[in-house]
Amino acid sequence: MRSLVIGASGGIGGAIARLLFGRGEVFLAARRMEKAPPGAVRLEVTDELEVHAFFQSLPPLDLLVYAVGAVERSPLRDLPRSAFETVLGANLTGAYLVLKHARFTPGGRGVFLGAYPGYVRVPGFAAYAAAKAGLEALLDVARKEFRREGVHLILVRLPAVATGLWTPLGGPPKGALSPEEAASRLLSEALKDPPPEVVEI
Amino acid sequence: MRSLVIGASGGIGGAIARLLFGRGEVFLAARRMEKAPPGAVRLEVTDELEVHAFFQSLPPLDLLVYAVGAVERSPLRDLPRSAFETVLGANLTGAYLVLKHARFTPGGRGVFLGAYPGYVRVPGFAAYAAAKAGLEALLDVARKEFRREGVHLILVRLPAVATGLWTPLGGPPKGALSPEEAASRLLSEALKDPPPEVVEI
Repeated sequence: MRSLVIGASGGIGGAIARLLFGRGEVFLAARRMEKAPPGAVRLEVTDELEVHAFFQSLPPLDLLVYAVGAVERSPLRDLPRSAFETVLGANLTGAYLVLKHARFTPGGRGVFLGAYPGYVRVPGFAAYAAAKAGLEALLDVARKEFRREGVHLILVRLPAVATGLWTPLGGPPKGALSPEEAASRLLSEALKDPPPEVVEI
Repeated sequence: MRSLVIGASGGIGGAIARLLFGRGEVFLAARRMEKAPPGAVRLEVTDELEVHAFFQSLPPLDLLVYAVGAVERSPLRDLPRSAFETVLGANLTGAYLVLKHARFTPGGRGVFLGAYPGYVRVPGFAAYAAAKAGLEALLDVARKEFRREGVHLILVRLPAVATGLWTPLGGPPKGALSPEEAASRLLSEALKDPPPEVVEI
């Protein structure tokens, strides 16, 4: 198996990378190199030239995990444009650019991290809710387009996971899954046959 | 009643403007001035400085209709970044900026044009589907935040309407509603009491 984890400097991406270690060839990409595991390549997913060049340098993949995310909490009336763009960029635009340029083996799988709409469509999370809803729709369309390539796209709806994503929000909510637990469930579900379209954890 | 139609140079926005004519004070905003009705103000909804200044110049509104839209048809693998951004900008980012800066009277209504997910989550429409899904989520959050201001946000899911939006796609599909018909149904539903949250036409 040839895998790629994008967002390997994050809590969930890092845990997935550790789980995949030793299971074939594993490529890692991350934005924050100071937190990235050894061997990770620097990748800014909203930079199309970087994304294109990155996938040109890789062989076709059996498994791609897009574990990039960003969140901001702010009432919409106070939400800075830059924060809105950052959240959309990480959760949605980056996913579009990765899907556009990624190369898969026939039967390859792309796994993307979503959210439960009911958990995120709450005051303060306008940008995050919009970005994750956009991601779900993007995957619904891409899934139909990629079917003839034999590529399976999998949306994983996650509850709160205790990662650094929550740091600017004052820490993870009570009962948040550990990244290891989330990563383990995610991988075992996403690798099932036949490939699921949506996984709820 | 004091109303604002944003996107008055479009087919649906123009038809709504004509229907509102004579029903109180009506403000119009448009991007393409050569197609805009007389009296329309030029407004680029993705320019926050413009959006802010525009709402500062207006009194609080009883009715705001956001009839801005853009669509592109392209397989995701060939979808240019600029087209993705244009579609997101018109359908989602512009709506966020308008919601951020708009001022309503207590009991005011904001009406936004959505789409039926099943109609738009089809090959070639990744950006449009993502943007409209994002808009729905944005409104779900904003509706909760704006409730204490007494502002009602209404999502209108429209089938295909025979407007210029379809020109780059080779014309509207068979059976598309006329803009006048769509505008008339939209207004009569959106002005009902109690205000609906979602209108399906």
